Amino acid sequence: MSKLLIVGTVAFDAIETPFGKTDKILGGAATYIGLSSSHFEIDSAIVSIVGEDFPEAHLNLLTSHGINIDGIEIVTGGKTFFWSGKYHNDLNTRDTLETQLNVLADFNPVVPEAYRDAEFVMLGNLHPMVQLSVLEQVKSPKLVVLDTMNFWMDNAWDDLLNVISKVDVITINDEEARQLTGEHSLVKAARKIYAMGPKYVVIKKGEHGALLFNKEKMFFAPALPLEDVFDPTGAGDTFAGGFTGYLAQSGDITFENMKNAVIYGSGMASFCVEKFGTERMEVLKESEINSRMLEFKSLTQFDIELSANKAL
Amino acid sequence: MSKLLIVGTVAFDAIETPFGKTDKILGGAATYIGLSSSHFEIDSAIVSIVGEDFPEAHLNLLTSHGINIDGIEIVTGGKTFFWSGKYHNDLNTRDTLETQLNVLADFNPVVPEAYRDAEFVMLGNLHPMVQLSVLEQVKSPKLVVLDTMNFWMDNAWDDLLNVISKVDVITINDEEARQLTGEHSLVKAARKIYAMGPKYVVIKKGEHGALLFNKEKMFFAPALPLEDVFDPTGAGDTFAGGFTGYLAQSGDITFENMKNAVIYGSGMASFCVEKFGTERMEVLKESEINSRMLEFKSLTQFDIELSANKAL
Repeated sequence: MSKLLIVGTVAFDAIETPFGKTDKILGGAATYIGLSSSHFEIDSAIVSIVGEDFPEAHLNLLTSHGINIDGIEIVTGGKTFFWSGKYHNDLNTRDTLETQLNVLADFNPVVPEAYRDAEFVMLGNLHPMVQLSVLEQVKSPKLVVLDTMNFWMDNAWDDLLNVISKVDVITINDEEARQLTGEHSLVKAARKIYAMGPKYVVIKKGEHGALLFNKEKMFFAPALPLEDVFDPTGAGDTFAGGFTGYLAQSGDITFENMKNAVIYGSGMASFCVEKFGTERMEVLKESEINSRMLEFKSLTQFDIELSANKAL
Repeated sequence: MSKLLIVGTVAFDAIETPFGKTDKILGGAATYIGLSSSHFEIDSAIVSIVGEDFPEAHLNLLTSHGINIDGIEIVTGGKTFFWSGKYHNDLNTRDTLETQLNVLADFNPVVPEAYRDAEFVMLGNLHPMVQLSVLEQVKSPKLVVLDTMNFWMDNAWDDLLNVISKVDVITINDEEARQLTGEHSLVKAARKIYAMGPKYVVIKKGEHGALLFNKEKMFFAPALPLEDVFDPTGAGDTFAGGFTGYLAQSGDITFENMKNAVIYGSGMASFCVEKFGTERMEVLKESEINSRMLEFKSLTQFDIELSANKAL
């Protein structure tokens, strides 16, 4: 069974969408990645940091999903990272209302001894210096995946470029890919990102799906058209969790298999947005995942015989 | 060989994009639909109207693509419909600079006798009363496809609802589907459109692809990610031409075959945007279409074994 090492926030979120509002609930990139990847046959562990205020029930939720939490530091007297945000009506954009770094301000990640030989590493959205520190503690991973966001482009450009140069796959949203490269065309943006280091580029387009690029090859995974999107928080992390979880389980990191991985990523994300926060992911059943994968098949698979037009 | 009857504008366009500017060039919905569908083994005809100023070379272009133009009325002393527009930097939005209805203002379409038994009818974007008049002249078509736009929602609502109630398929863009139904979710919008008449709903999302809906079934055709989109003019019409051309050739109007039709529509549209106006479509080769269909296959086809996660 492959080991998947995840670094990212384990945190509190307070979310407002057109459909409602939450108090402080469980959130954080590593939480979503962990819950999503827990549906695959892997040995996963989270490296993160929380304060004394973090409920044991939340930690128990992670362990009950088979996630090792030895790498989650609990700071006595400390307070957990907190983010609150409000989504606009179309749910595609949001305003950050408040960010309290708290214990995250002095986070020196320590990878547990047992996971330093992890074959798969998922560097969830965090300061690039923290991502880099985790990467340096891992011996010789088979595949390193990086997720990041525009905040680090604005505030830690050099560190970000440094960590980007050391990973195999980057997952990033479309506007961020444009910001990172100065290219509007995502095909051109991907090409510029290869030059920064990653051989594989995954560009997430929210409700418009995700693109996987590798050299001159492309693959597209749609988002599932939904009647209602309730709360997009964590969808990108959940995508990354499905993507890396599937790859870690299969052990196959070819482009062909990464196609399946982005479909799994998109499928897991389609559950995440159905309820507030981690609510949907906490109770997600394997049979539901399989049904959804069948929906993705019927949504995308066609059978054109290429003698169909005049050409042949 | 099935007959495809097309009604729509045959016109002059003047286009400005971030990449350049044209004088009066060949344009119009029926032109794009005709050129696109001409790549399938069908017997197609255009019903439209032009002025005396319309060059014979443009008409010859249509006939050289095997399109019957007996239904294109040439008004002596009249001037051809003219539209000019300027695209914004992202090419997703545009401003209309000028619209001269000219001969279109008094258009009474006459379907040539030889095409009143057409099995397939494509009602391109025009006043819904004109679309309706054409439909009333056709005996018992197997499939009627309607394309329309927000202009008619604003200016001819009742007529539009009337023609919508009489067609099998509607193709419409995402924002227009939202305007037509008052629903933000495209899944919900499609359901409301069924109630208006069409059994099949195709929602075009420009660079984000197209969705096909029928009852509870959905299919998604991506747009091909391109390095450069040069000019989006006519892309929606070209999509409609590929869609109906393929269906008319195959004669198969099942949902399964419509999946192929939206892929062909998307494929044809991906050529249209590569150059200004009809430039690319005028010289498109069958071998290029087949190559692009292969690109769509590799872009979308995957092979997940559903034993891949824990469920089975």
